[in-house]
Amino acid sequence: MLIIAERINATRSRIAHALRWRDAGLIAREARAQAETGASFIDINAGSDPAREAEDLEWAVSVVQQATDLPICLDSSNPEVLRRGLELLSGKAVMLNSVTGEKAKLSAVLPLASESGALLVALAMDDRGLPDTAERRVEITGAIVRAAEAAGIGRDRLYVDPCIQPLSTSPDQARAVLAAILRIMAAFPGIHMTCGLSNISFGLPNRALLNRTYLACLILAGLDSAIVDPTSDGLMDAVRAAQALAGRDEYCMNYIRAMRPRTP
Amino acid sequence: MLIIAERINATRSRIAHALRWRDAGLIAREARAQAETGASFIDINAGSDPAREAEDLEWAVSVVQQATDLPICLDSSNPEVLRRGLELLSGKAVMLNSVTGEKAKLSAVLPLASESGALLVALAMDDRGLPDTAERRVEITGAIVRAAEAAGIGRDRLYVDPCIQPLSTSPDQARAVLAAILRIMAAFPGIHMTCGLSNISFGLPNRALLNRTYLACLILAGLDSAIVDPTSDGLMDAVRAAQALAGRDEYCMNYIRAMRPRTP
Repeated sequence: MLIIAERINATRSRIAHALRWRDAGLIAREARAQAETGASFIDINAGSDPAREAEDLEWAVSVVQQATDLPICLDSSNPEVLRRGLELLSGKAVMLNSVTGEKAKLSAVLPLASESGALLVALAMDDRGLPDTAERRVEITGAIVRAAEAAGIGRDRLYVDPCIQPLSTSPDQARAVLAAILRIMAAFPGIHMTCGLSNISFGLPNRALLNRTYLACLILAGLDSAIVDPTSDGLMDAVRAAQALAGRDEYCMNYIRAMRPRTP
Repeated sequence: MLIIAERINATRSRIAHALRWRDAGLIAREARAQAETGASFIDINAGSDPAREAEDLEWAVSVVQQATDLPICLDSSNPEVLRRGLELLSGKAVMLNSVTGEKAKLSAVLPLASESGALLVALAMDDRGLPDTAERRVEITGAIVRAAEAAGIGRDRLYVDPCIQPLSTSPDQARAVLAAILRIMAAFPGIHMTCGLSNISFGLPNRALLNRTYLACLILAGLDSAIVDPTSDGLMDAVRAAQALAGRDEYCMNYIRAMRPRTP
């Protein structure tokens, strides 16, 4: 299970502030706190100010690299920003977040992933917008897979995000995304599935409960990655329980180890 | 979602003791505590001593009826005990737990359910024993459905329990049961699915976490009943989150109401 830790994101005001004022201590603490939960990648989104984004990302990457050994997931909607981040991380394991099925995005981001060997988050949306149904998600994924393979990116490097929309406004979203995951995995064997989880609970109370409950269900369906706040209450415990239930934890050893009372 | 509250069960030593010494206070407290969680049925199993089971069940039924208004689920492997319980509850909503696909059980219990109009828990096991695979669970359910319908019991009164075996000894159980639920619901439209949940976590630490995590996944797959300890840590919250995710909670109103801070 590949956990992409999402807390260093400029849409959070504390992070935007830390980027603006070069508060390395705060960024480093966020990186370490997420690393300690067992996360796999530290996502960095520095997009608070388009004029400064590339420079802010470069600074944050260097801070996170000093704070943890975890690989970095470069997160930007601007391909040029991704390119500059990749230069800084040349030769290291890295993930790009994200490409979509939009034609302009595919032609700008696929070459970056191809050349660098990066793993690639692919959002199942395209020039027609966000998908509502499982069918549309399968269709968009197909277009992304074909374009990626033509660019020399095997589907084993693709992490498809089915683009969860809020349950509060779309009551059938949770089931549609679950169905999409099952269908995409059946249609494109070897592909990975991830998801930006927290959208599901937008506008509802006790979001942590809805998020971790839904994540566990998606893991049992086959999800093998997620973009989450791994410090969220109970989230990583739910992940470990779901991994055991999914038969992906031999003799439940990871689960048993994680449940041991921690010695001080 | 039909929650069958399982705590009044003679396999628990406190309950066996309360039955033996007619501790009505303890039984009444257990009934009320479970009713307060939002449970649908109070299960009563008085099977600590075969010689006294019918008498103990009758006593416990009368205590629970005084303590709560919830209907009762009579739980015994002895059809004669179920018959005596049904006499006491004549004219009331009642559930029987359980019939199986075993020939002797079918011929003894189906007439009781047929005459009384009771709902009926049906364990997907038969004379060949407990099932390992989804296929066997579908096959056994088919035999039970045919026998029940021949006895005048519509499948809408059947609550099929797929017989979960412990994850600690059968690592593919959780997925096999999930698959069985999907296949049984597709093969027998209108049937209900329940499960004796806690078996899944037998022998593992933090059983409440595994139980509630798995229950949520089963609810998203279509499970519409469960035999559980509704007072278990976080269990009913997970049920409410899963019901919302499953699109079975209009505007998430039940979820939102349950998450409101309780006023003293």
